[in-house]
Amino acid sequence: MGGAMQAPASPYGQFLSDNAARVHPRVWAAMQAADAPDAAYDGDRLSRRLDEAFSALFGKDCAVLWASTGTAANCLALATMVQPHGGVVCHREAHIEMDEGGAPGFFLHGAKLLLADGAGGRLTPDAIESVLAGITRGVHQVQAHAISLTQASEWGQVYQPEEIAAIAALAHDRGLGLHMDGARFANAAAFLGCHPAQVAGPVDALSFGCTKNGGMDAEAIVFCDAEKADLARWRRKRAGHLQSKGRYMAAQILALVEDGLWLELAAHANAMAAIVAEGAGERAVFAPQANEVFVNLAPAQRAALRAQGFAFHDWNEACVRMVASWDTREEDARALSAALAAL
Amino acid sequence: MGGAMQAPASPYGQFLSDNAARVHPRVWAAMQAADAPDAAYDGDRLSRRLDEAFSALFGKDCAVLWASTGTAANCLALATMVQPHGGVVCHREAHIEMDEGGAPGFFLHGAKLLLADGAGGRLTPDAIESVLAGITRGVHQVQAHAISLTQASEWGQVYQPEEIAAIAALAHDRGLGLHMDGARFANAAAFLGCHPAQVAGPVDALSFGCTKNGGMDAEAIVFCDAEKADLARWRRKRAGHLQSKGRYMAAQILALVEDGLWLELAAHANAMAAIVAEGAGERAVFAPQANEVFVNLAPAQRAALRAQGFAFHDWNEACVRMVASWDTREEDARALSAALAAL
Amino acid sequence: MGGAMQAPASPYGQFLSDNAARVHPRVWAAMQAADAPDAAYDGDRLSRRLDEAFSALFGKDCAVLWASTGTAANCLALATMVQPHGGVVCHREAHIEMDEGGAPGFFLHGAKLLLADGAGGRLTPDAIESVLAGITRGVHQVQAHAISLTQASEWGQVYQPEEIAAIAALAHDRGLGLHMDGARFANAAAFLGCHPAQVAGPVDALSFGCTKNGGMDAEAIVFCDAEKADLARWRRKRAGHLQSKGRYMAAQILALVEDGLWLELAAHANAMAAIVAEGAGERAVFAPQANEVFVNLAPAQRAALRAQGFAFHDWNEACVRMVASWDTREEDARALSAALAAL
Amino acid sequence: MGGAMQAPASPYGQFLSDNAARVHPRVWAAMQAADAPDAAYDGDRLSRRLDEAFSALFGKDCAVLWASTGTAANCLALATMVQPHGGVVCHREAHIEMDEGGAPGFFLHGAKLLLADGAGGRLTPDAIESVLAGITRGVHQVQAHAISLTQASEWGQVYQPEEIAAIAALAHDRGLGLHMDGARFANAAAFLGCHPAQVAGPVDALSFGCTKNGGMDAEAIVFCDAEKADLARWRRKRAGHLQSKGRYMAAQILALVEDGLWLELAAHANAMAAIVAEGAGERAVFAPQANEVFVNLAPAQRAALRAQGFAFHDWNEACVRMVASWDTREEDARALSAALAAL
Repeated sequence: MGGAMQAPASPYGQFLSDNAARVHPRVWAAMQAADAPDAAYDGDRLSRRLDEAFSALFGKDCAVLWASTGTAANCLALATMVQPHGGVVCHREAHIEMDEGGAPGFFLHGAKLLLADGAGGRLTPDAIESVLAGITRGVHQVQAHAISLTQASEWGQVYQPEEIAAIAALAHDRGLGLHMDGARFANAAAFLGCHPAQVAGPVDALSFGCTKNGGMDAEAIVFCDAEKADLARWRRKRAGHLQSKGRYMAAQILALVEDGLWLELAAHANAMAAIVAEGAGERAVFAPQANEVFVNLAPAQRAALRAQGFAFHDWNEACVRMVASWDTREEDARALSAALAAL
Repeated sequence: MGGAMQAPASPYGQFLSDNAARVHPRVWAAMQAADAPDAAYDGDRLSRRLDEAFSALFGKDCAVLWASTGTAANCLALATMVQPHGGVVCHREAHIEMDEGGAPGFFLHGAKLLLADGAGGRLTPDAIESVLAGITRGVHQVQAHAISLTQASEWGQVYQPEEIAAIAALAHDRGLGLHMDGARFANAAAFLGCHPAQVAGPVDALSFGCTKNGGMDAEAIVFCDAEKADLARWRRKRAGHLQSKGRYMAAQILALVEDGLWLELAAHANAMAAIVAEGAGERAVFAPQANEVFVNLAPAQRAALRAQGFAFHDWNEACVRMVASWDTREEDARALSAALAAL
Repeated sequence: MGGAMQAPASPYGQFLSDNAARVHPRVWAAMQAADAPDAAYDGDRLSRRLDEAFSALFGKDCAVLWASTGTAANCLALATMVQPHGGVVCHREAHIEMDEGGAPGFFLHGAKLLLADGAGGRLTPDAIESVLAGITRGVHQVQAHAISLTQASEWGQVYQPEEIAAIAALAHDRGLGLHMDGARFANAAAFLGCHPAQVAGPVDALSFGCTKNGGMDAEAIVFCDAEKADLARWRRKRAGHLQSKGRYMAAQILALVEDGLWLELAAHANAMAAIVAEGAGERAVFAPQANEVFVNLAPAQRAALRAQGFAFHDWNEACVRMVASWDTREEDARALSAALAAL
Repeated sequence: MGGAMQAPASPYGQFLSDNAARVHPRVWAAMQAADAPDAAYDGDRLSRRLDEAFSALFGKDCAVLWASTGTAANCLALATMVQPHGGVVCHREAHIEMDEGGAPGFFLHGAKLLLADGAGGRLTPDAIESVLAGITRGVHQVQAHAISLTQASEWGQVYQPEEIAAIAALAHDRGLGLHMDGARFANAAAFLGCHPAQVAGPVDALSFGCTKNGGMDAEAIVFCDAEKADLARWRRKRAGHLQSKGRYMAAQILALVEDGLWLELAAHANAMAAIVAEGAGERAVFAPQANEVFVNLAPAQRAALRAQGFAFHDWNEACVRMVASWDTREEDARALSAALAAL
């Protein structure tokens, strides 16, 4: 992965977030290869290659847009399925509910998030049904128009293909759209080891994350339905997300997707997380399935680790979050693992 | 990377748009220098340097945010001044009215653009007063909350400092916010040759363009008032424009701004436009003041130029737009100039 | 029309607006007949009779909602046809553009009004085509999703059935929705003297005004398409327009519509306006076709009339607006007519 | 019109909702007294008397607007305190969350409801603090801008003056607006028996309900701060809630408020509810403090009561809601009470 990886990582951000990671050398190279005049916006040759790249990846016709953030990707995807007077069933701890500063309310013009429970940040058909059952049919209550899943979840847990299929069946029966927030889709895919089409399942739109996985500022919004993609194009421009030099975003996505780099990088991040989890032992809240490890630690333990130079996020009063990324060095993962074991 | 500049420019996009231009080598270098783990979002060292850089540039305290597009920059700036039930006085041909796909309606939650006339895409106090006079005071009509100027205008025309001062005085008297769309602020500054503070005048917020001037995907939103900047921060996140690896955007802006590259590149683009305009002679709609030349051409003349490999934009039935950028080669500008003269 | 009509009219509001008129005695009677407990919202027997009443009136299946204002009726109707990123072609002087305080921007979530010209406040296919031709196809410009006509127009002018048919054909060809603001639909119908279905033409939604025509606070939104009506029901509740005692609104509408009172009252108002216009002679801006007379008057002339006790609206610098209503007394109309003639 | 009160009430709606009740004869009389031409919108003499009437009622300067529904009143009030990127802390079972079809999302442009728990539908400072403590400061999470209380609550429970004062102190400390949904404010006032100013406490805006308490379609929005009232005026027009014949709404409100009718009617409704509750005995979920009784009833018991002609609302699987109104007859309340006791 290039010489840059040997440089000592900054102590800051080490396990804080995959958002803090660098851009992968092959992504850089692709961006620089795009550095020639081309059509503005998404009329360039690279942007026009996205449909083909994802159609190949998923083995079916896809229509794909880029967007610079996961928040924009999620909200633009949902805006194709949810009217302003409708709602989105999502997990109580989903990124769209917890971490997007109210962006769904903005992009969906006041539509509502309808919160469901579920272990590990994952929805189940029962949890969804329970939310739907609590909504009286009629104009006095906001009705669900869509369901949004997160693969892998905010707790780094992964949906098995049959679990997604069950939720998709429910969505289909109820006439609801189905969206997948795949900010860490690559990590889920690396964990599952099955075909990407199975990792996504039959969703209507997928936010396919690249930024956390070696990209700089590009996410792909993957639609099965070209009409929904067209609708998203109007909304993307209107949201100020149609970059004029979109070719550099397309280049990032293609560099990750076209020859399997996305899976390779995610597998590395997952492996580093597994090393950390090993040291955490029974303190780990879940057996990590992706690149995040949640560890129950008391304040003094957190302080002790930080004193050793490890950076991580205080998730809540009970636990911390440690995230590995594509550029986490094995020696650092092992050091953290050992420090955890020694607590 | 300097070598790339010698390469023959693609015939496509040559004079089509400054949006189609490449990223300047020093901008690339700055982005790569930022390629180490740092705090996510805008907590990194580079993003935190923006206030200082622009305060130095303008000689007064500034609070600065990045955004990836001019549309986002304009709309986030306006959202700090305009309530949903208000309006923005702007030129009938302003970018926010003509080219942003309804983004002001989205970001301002349905606020209205109140259209004024003016030669060369420029507003005058009289034109603004005329719009205001046509609005009956009271809840039945949308009242103006702000004025938006474009420096340089959509027709490549530049406001003189005293013209901006007059409009600012009007805005101040009426209690209206004042915004400047500076997608081509650098070109205006290069034309005027005066201090940046005079090019901007006493506006409340300035969209300072970088993308068209050697950047990749970064614009600066410059506020005089830290409270307005804080407000814009909430709105930026909510609009999905808070990139997680914001340091790469900050790097672009700083590379352009901190040592004068922005002015140098704009001066080059302006000079290239002047060469083109020379050939256009009396066919030029205006004497170009920035990097755009509008030329009255009949369809057959347009076809003749295109047959020679020149690319440009059909502005309307009467004229075409030819835009020079930081990487326009003098030989290409001279070739186009000669071709125009030979028509 | 009952003893109340003999009472001397207040000098205030006489010809100021049909909004200032009283509630017709038969409307009062119908409201009081509704004064028994019934289902809340629009589940009562009267609200459920609206579909039938309008289906009978128009000779085809209609689905009808009440709303308390013309602004709400117009905007709820348009919201069924226009997405947030779209636009509505309307006359530059339409009520939705001039007098609704930005309500279309609110109800349509930032969609844009696309302004067309036309004599007498009336659109023509050419004027609409001209607006559409000015919009570049593509995400950079707001595309039209619907057309909105006003029957009778803001200048009291009426569309002939074949004129509406021509605009409807255009809308149909372009895939645009067609809305009619019928705040003074009754006055247009009384003028045309043809079947209500011809007065409305093949529009997708009609705001059928009652408040200006003897009602208290009720307008009907008439849809041909039950699905659009269902959509409007969600939006009506969400806009706080689903009154809990809706039966009193339904009662008003039924009282006007079910036995022809609406036409009778409008015919009276039109006749009173004609009397006024007679006195205005060549000062009348248009031959009045409905209940409004616009008269070119200098400031001194306005003052002279006001000194005689007549109230009217300063429409603009050139002319005033004089509006007759269902309860305008013939002697008052004749007095104003004479005063105008004597100027 | 007094005679109508003696007529046997329709069995339908008897205890279903106070929304289903009739309009009080004195309200009718006031509306008819308003039936003369006057200024349109809210420029009439009655609308202009509202400030004075409520200033007298509350013993301090008030600025008051009418609106036709509680949903509109609540949302227009909140829109003066909450920016689109903010949130409103309210009870999980508040009307704005449960019964307004997403209206807060619409009027507040996507702002979020932040849900708190609390027995009897009432908030406590602790419950509010707990919600606030769960919100990370910063742009990633929606911050509270206001708190909304319901007096009396959805469960017919009443805040004591000192409880409101404690919440107001918290709001003040945190810089949050404070809104009171007083759809049944009259019933709370009748229960508390103290000065209206104590029933409301130091809230910034109060939705003062009239429709459920003898009105037809009028609620008052009472502001302490004239600037907030002015802001609400713009928003009201924009929401299509500025009725053109507003004098009939003002008449309703004045008839209820100016001579104490509002309290008299609410006291009657409360008394009728108390009679019903007596029969319910230990089945009553709460001791009723206003005009609503919630009774734990099994499906068979519900059916048995309905077979006897009583109408009421299935609140949830455990209990039903029985609502008395100003026109509930004592004999009917006693009959229901007896039927409950006999179960």
